[in-house]
Amino acid sequence: MGNCLVAQSGGPTSVINATLAGVVMGNQLNPIYDTVYGGLHGIEGILQERLVDLTHMSEDENRILRQTPSSALGSCRYKLKRENIHDYEKLFEILDKYNIDTMFYIGGNDSMDTVYSLSQYAKQKGITKHQFVGCPKTVDNDLMVTDHCPGFASAAKVIATTQLQTWLDFNVYTRQEVFILETMGRDAGWLAASACTTGKVDLLVLPEEVFDPELFYEQVRQILAEKNKCYIVISEGVKFADGRYLAAGESKNDLFGHAVLGGAGQALKEMLLEHKVCDRAKVQEMSTLQRCYAPQQSLVDVDESFRLGMSAHMRSADKNFTGKMVGLTRKDTEEYDIDFFAIDASEVANHVKNFPLEWILDNYRGVTQEALDYFAPLMVGQPQIHLDEKGLPRYVKPFYHR
Amino acid sequence: MGNCLVAQSGGPTSVINATLAGVVMGNQLNPIYDTVYGGLHGIEGILQERLVDLTHMSEDENRILRQTPSSALGSCRYKLKRENIHDYEKLFEILDKYNIDTMFYIGGNDSMDTVYSLSQYAKQKGITKHQFVGCPKTVDNDLMVTDHCPGFASAAKVIATTQLQTWLDFNVYTRQEVFILETMGRDAGWLAASACTTGKVDLLVLPEEVFDPELFYEQVRQILAEKNKCYIVISEGVKFADGRYLAAGESKNDLFGHAVLGGAGQALKEMLLEHKVCDRAKVQEMSTLQRCYAPQQSLVDVDESFRLGMSAHMRSADKNFTGKMVGLTRKDTEEYDIDFFAIDASEVANHVKNFPLEWILDNYRGVTQEALDYFAPLMVGQPQIHLDEKGLPRYVKPFYHR
Repeated sequence: MGNCLVAQSGGPTSVINATLAGVVMGNQLNPIYDTVYGGLHGIEGILQERLVDLTHMSEDENRILRQTPSSALGSCRYKLKRENIHDYEKLFEILDKYNIDTMFYIGGNDSMDTVYSLSQYAKQKGITKHQFVGCPKTVDNDLMVTDHCPGFASAAKVIATTQLQTWLDFNVYTRQEVFILETMGRDAGWLAASACTTGKVDLLVLPEEVFDPELFYEQVRQILAEKNKCYIVISEGVKFADGRYLAAGESKNDLFGHAVLGGAGQALKEMLLEHKVCDRAKVQEMSTLQRCYAPQQSLVDVDESFRLGMSAHMRSADKNFTGKMVGLTRKDTEEYDIDFFAIDASEVANHVKNFPLEWILDNYRGVTQEALDYFAPLMVGQPQIHLDEKGLPRYVKPFYHR
Repeated sequence: MGNCLVAQSGGPTSVINATLAGVVMGNQLNPIYDTVYGGLHGIEGILQERLVDLTHMSEDENRILRQTPSSALGSCRYKLKRENIHDYEKLFEILDKYNIDTMFYIGGNDSMDTVYSLSQYAKQKGITKHQFVGCPKTVDNDLMVTDHCPGFASAAKVIATTQLQTWLDFNVYTRQEVFILETMGRDAGWLAASACTTGKVDLLVLPEEVFDPELFYEQVRQILAEKNKCYIVISEGVKFADGRYLAAGESKNDLFGHAVLGGAGQALKEMLLEHKVCDRAKVQEMSTLQRCYAPQQSLVDVDESFRLGMSAHMRSADKNFTGKMVGLTRKDTEEYDIDFFAIDASEVANHVKNFPLEWILDNYRGVTQEALDYFAPLMVGQPQIHLDEKGLPRYVKPFYHR
């Protein structure tokens, strides 16, 4: 019997550890592998042989791991470049050294590209010993094919809850006021749109539509005339007609060439004040908090993420199962239910699934009932969060700090 | 039998409605008053006779009210000015018209000034029919005499939880990084200091100490040299030696002459980058969210706030009970416990209780064990939050929207 390796990559989520917990528990229930290694800091740490042994994790630690946000194994934004053949050789050397049959990689579309390219490399070299399996995670919900991504629903729940709570806050004074909530999402509007599930969003600005300032100002003025208050949700990735981000003043590129976003809400506030659309506007940037506030995990999300890890583990018993990602498909039933399925990682790698244009209402007035029906079942339920004696959520010590 | 009136003022908190719920339920358990009126938007709405009848609130509504953040009656920042005699006359006219014996005012130190000045006015005019009772609330925890303020512990819990969750998030990459969490608190450091309960704060910057950039940069450099990561918590009200706020670029005054703060974290980030103390820093502003994220209420806080409302109601049966605030005193017992007590509102009005200097460690290294012992029991416990079918917390429709 060989071993397996599981690692995490890309931006953290509230439930990325639930998938890790699922792989570990999967192997306890059905020991396909002798040892379950955790690779620290993704590909970056694996190339340095930074591995830990997760095989015998206790049930208590597994439970607390599922409520610990962020990547307990550490993460990286290191991308395997196809021309960098040395990295491939080194990685396969390490897989051989530790007798690793299967590598599970939990991440977004860059990680699915890693799964794809490693399986391609093995195929070209005629290597059949090693399998590469992708487990999706991203708060942005922008992966192709899968109905939704583990991690999205918990972030959406934090955003919708914050929308509701701040809406209650900003209404208490009689003065005219605009409130702007800024969410993550990169070039996809899923997270921002999810705030509409509260029924309290007046205007929604998504990256899928070019931003038209004049049309938007007119909407704000109409709403303020009607009720003296206007609650706006904006996605970080909104652009002008000329392709500039609203938050352009602060935009930089990360190592992957992705723009580093944030600041769209503040930019919008300044535009509204400058054009005298309103006298007073407050901005709440969700920032890092939205992707890691695990005490508000969606029970559906944490449960699906956990089961996805187990599903990936079980499927890997098939020696031909490589270059695949395990996704979620929504069943055509009245009660919400899902199936797990496998797809070639190449179909997911380096693509973006945008929020559907046909789900966006005209004039920034939010989303259709179809969109609300899509979101509704995902955020349901609250896992029991185990607290410490101070009233703070318990968490596992990150493996990279041990 | 006469009636009573309860109203809310100042900035919202997560548990200000629990005190309202306590007054209402107090009168159901012991009907001292025929009718419990709610005054909408504080003094501002009362002067316009905007009153609602809360006498017969159902048990279910009372329960949900306690988990609804923000001021369900609406709030105001309208301050009774002593020279504006017309407001006083008008208010007493309305109290007479609605046969109101007692007015409960839930708010911060400006509201305690209102309680004090109304009771003084009555005394000067020889009016004995009306009583004025203050119930404290403020997330800033800056009221004199009371051990702590209802509302503080829940905000502190949200901040500490966010600190822990974002600390887990910012550690996942191997790169050097500084994270800055900005809290509210005005000129008092209680909220920022509460983040230290996690044990994960490297540096803490409070408004009680003049900010010394050079000393601070040196600390950041030391910590980065040691562990490559530095987590900083800063209070919005931090000032330079010359009295300017760090966030000075954005400072304005509100109607009370208080500075409108926010932006200290961003300012600090820019200073660190400009002086090449680090290459990368991320800011999380807690903003509005910290004071209204009721799903993370502290059970101790919501329970104390509720009981404080009942205590104020019961004490008002004494016709001489006027110009008073009900506060909390910590018992000298091993297990945390409190007593309610009454104090003249004049002793609280317009004062600020700062975070004790003797609880602050040198070189921005956090707080003493005594401070941690003060915070520890306040954040304990999690009330059972009732969710709707979408997984979002249930809330009562604001009374000013009915």
